[in-house]
Amino acid sequence: MSLGCDRPVLYCLCTIFLSLALPSLNLPPSLSQGTRDYNPKQMAIRERVFNTIIRCFKRHGAETIDTPVFELKETLTGKYGEDSKLIYDLKDQGGELLSLRYDLTVPFARYLAMNKITNIKRYHIAKVYRRDNPAMTRGRYREFYQCDFDIAGQYDPMIPDAECLKIVHEILSELELGDFRIKVNDRRILDGMFAVCGVPDDKFRTICSTVDKLDKMSWEDVKSEMVNEKGLSEEAADQIGQYVSMQGGMDLAERLLQDAKMSQSKQACAGLTDMKQLFSYLQLFQVTDKVVFDLSLARGLDYYTGVIYEAILTQNCPVNVSATQNGVDEKAEEGVSVGSVAGGGRYDGLVGMFDPKGRKVPCVGVSIGIERVFSIMEQKAEASARKVRTTETQVMVASAQKNLLNERLRLTAELWNAGIKTEVMYKKNPKLLSQLQHCEDSGIPLVAILGEQELKDGVVKLRTVHSREEVDVSRAELAEEIKKRTSDV
Amino acid sequence: MSLGCDRPVLYCLCTIFLSLALPSLNLPPSLSQGTRDYNPKQMAIRERVFNTIIRCFKRHGAETIDTPVFELKETLTGKYGEDSKLIYDLKDQGGELLSLRYDLTVPFARYLAMNKITNIKRYHIAKVYRRDNPAMTRGRYREFYQCDFDIAGQYDPMIPDAECLKIVHEILSELELGDFRIKVNDRRILDGMFAVCGVPDDKFRTICSTVDKLDKMSWEDVKSEMVNEKGLSEEAADQIGQYVSMQGGMDLAERLLQDAKMSQSKQACAGLTDMKQLFSYLQLFQVTDKVVFDLSLARGLDYYTGVIYEAILTQNCPVNVSATQNGVDEKAEEGVSVGSVAGGGRYDGLVGMFDPKGRKVPCVGVSIGIERVFSIMEQKAEASARKVRTTETQVMVASAQKNLLNERLRLTAELWNAGIKTEVMYKKNPKLLSQLQHCEDSGIPLVAILGEQELKDGVVKLRTVHSREEVDVSRAELAEEIKKRTSDV
Repeated sequence: MSLGCDRPVLYCLCTIFLSLALPSLNLPPSLSQGTRDYNPKQMAIRERVFNTIIRCFKRHGAETIDTPVFELKETLTGKYGEDSKLIYDLKDQGGELLSLRYDLTVPFARYLAMNKITNIKRYHIAKVYRRDNPAMTRGRYREFYQCDFDIAGQYDPMIPDAECLKIVHEILSELELGDFRIKVNDRRILDGMFAVCGVPDDKFRTICSTVDKLDKMSWEDVKSEMVNEKGLSEEAADQIGQYVSMQGGMDLAERLLQDAKMSQSKQACAGLTDMKQLFSYLQLFQVTDKVVFDLSLARGLDYYTGVIYEAILTQNCPVNVSATQNGVDEKAEEGVSVGSVAGGGRYDGLVGMFDPKGRKVPCVGVSIGIERVFSIMEQKAEASARKVRTTETQVMVASAQKNLLNERLRLTAELWNAGIKTEVMYKKNPKLLSQLQHCEDSGIPLVAILGEQELKDGVVKLRTVHSREEVDVSRAELAEEIKKRTSDV
Repeated sequence: MSLGCDRPVLYCLCTIFLSLALPSLNLPPSLSQGTRDYNPKQMAIRERVFNTIIRCFKRHGAETIDTPVFELKETLTGKYGEDSKLIYDLKDQGGELLSLRYDLTVPFARYLAMNKITNIKRYHIAKVYRRDNPAMTRGRYREFYQCDFDIAGQYDPMIPDAECLKIVHEILSELELGDFRIKVNDRRILDGMFAVCGVPDDKFRTICSTVDKLDKMSWEDVKSEMVNEKGLSEEAADQIGQYVSMQGGMDLAERLLQDAKMSQSKQACAGLTDMKQLFSYLQLFQVTDKVVFDLSLARGLDYYTGVIYEAILTQNCPVNVSATQNGVDEKAEEGVSVGSVAGGGRYDGLVGMFDPKGRKVPCVGVSIGIERVFSIMEQKAEASARKVRTTETQVMVASAQKNLLNERLRLTAELWNAGIKTEVMYKKNPKLLSQLQHCEDSGIPLVAILGEQELKDGVVKLRTVHSREEVDVSRAELAEEIKKRTSDV
């Protein structure tokens, strides 16, 4: 170490000071913006929600796949339009340019093209990443789950599309989130409508984006955006306004097929004919009570080519009110909706974008807005008197006397080997009270208590935590007795 | 557009040509190096393995948590020593500097410190990321699963440590991977041994890393690295050589406590006393048949402070041979091992690194080497005659006659509503043969066949796929009958 001039000395002293001071400079650890940990309680709720959804997907014969969390950057390029700026890129550390997946649909299409798969019914539950402005109190994160079900393959029209809607109906019913509506429309009907209303061809997508805002903005504001920002004629906008206020069922599709203007568009007619067909299948599936053909539904993504849909919760029940307080959706206060909880549609062109020869694989799918579902379920759990258990432990092996650690461990291993979910305290001589308290806290229903007398008699005192009732059970029958008493857990 | 000179024109023409040619220039899509998709068959195997492991973790009363896939870069800094160069960083797109998680242990420690948790038994199954040289045929990926179980808290010595070893024993037994050994050692015993053998204090970690290579290198090569690369005296190396060849059980710990040299180290004595205690608990848990106290076990990571362990498969059964052919481990050919399938140890200092006041939370944990388990299970599945099912579908609704689509859909919805996993073909008039073929291909055990006659009679022809036996079942009893016949699926 050279001490030849002042500067190195100062530098060295600073370095020494800094490294000595470092331990106390330790900042409290924190998370990256827009992300969160799931604690055990949130995980227990998450597991229940996933189980319900996966059970439904499996009931419909779906397989599952998984793809990497990052893809080659070029795989995601040109798929998301304006939203591409929200894609997370990895640092160039040598090698390929990589990005975190933005959704599960593009990786699915890449997977199909890469493996030359032309038929599959698959679900995929995984996290996706968007550099959006996080609004965590409103349930908007930068890392969040998507829960997708898609059917790929060349089939007769509207049959898989109807199954997707049936799945949304089943999942939302089983999750007991309150009343809901599923809005349905078709990109071909929208495009046809734009054409007959006099929207220039090159403005279809941008006008479609504006229509998409009708669930958040009034018609007046939407019209003003069309006319003032997008340069549409007022006459065209007014004509659109008439159509997008229409809602109905199969009857509306029939009426529009007779509509003097609408019937001029071949595209619209194709969409309307399919819409009639879709409703006939939905009748067979007994789900028409919740489905509305709604001409204002547009959906943001570019890649849809046919039917589109979106499910919203309509009930303004206490649960939804607290969701509103949490800011999940502004409109909920007005008793309208807490926003979209599922959405999807048909995208027949996406797989072809990945195929060297452009071979298309028609696809239709649905994505469950699982983060919103989580926050509703969490609030429901908060509001409920019933405690969320974070373990499934059936019994705690305890003792009131000292020096019985070895006996406790021996019995614990016996129960583990018999498949019983068992806990034991990692202390030589824990107090009985603290052992019982742990059971109360974590909802363990039974305690197996060992004492000198019980060991002599070859029994265990089995205590029911909530009733405090105790009964001697022979050691040989203990596992069976615990299974019997916790079969409903 | 300026056409003032040749170059811009050429440039423009090229651009036009390129963009026109783009659709046919579409390259086949590919994956980022070192990553892979899981197809439905691999997912079915993965689900089975996870279920076995999670069942074990739950049997031991563990909760689960989840953390984000990326952390603040500073959270990971200074935790992995030399391996830090393998951390994936995200691109600086404005905002915080982020990195993909490298393991689940550091995020767990960050989670405990951040939430001031001093007691928890948790498992965490999630993907981690390492910019390693991928060797995918050897099961080494850049994105791979970790499967961690950890116990945090101040407890009496060796009780949670013994439970971790019991868990490894249970999981490896239940997965039926063949015979295995669990090697155990203690960082304090290693450090004490280095001290009494004359290794200078500042060389402990680097000599420890060299000892860690004994499972891949001969003693001669290890010794040569110690002497020639790390500058250790030959005498010290030879003394180490004597110790690291020792293997045993509680008896070895007792012998070393009497060892003239070893007993001079307070650290070694503390470790050896705990080792005796550990073996006494392992006896109560009935797992000593597989556990070996092995002084050559060192483990790479810096953060271990006490007991360390590693499980290896020892059987050179056909499965392992094919694992060898796949290159999983070079030694397998010699019938020694197919490498480590689980590992872990005690790390009492890591949480304190995240606490502003340095408060420590003692931790002990184990990580299951799940990717290696997957590849063994996949090879087992390949070798087995039994087909891996990728769906759980119980019945296919079919018809032999035309124009029965609506009737098929109606019955399908009835079965879905009754909780039966049901598939139906998305074609108006599929051939009976192709419907039956689909059942054969995907292992669907039953077919519910509808025809004009059956509809008239209010029955369904229920066909067992493997026996081709058919029986009429009344529509009202169909769901129950299917449940009964597929209760073992």
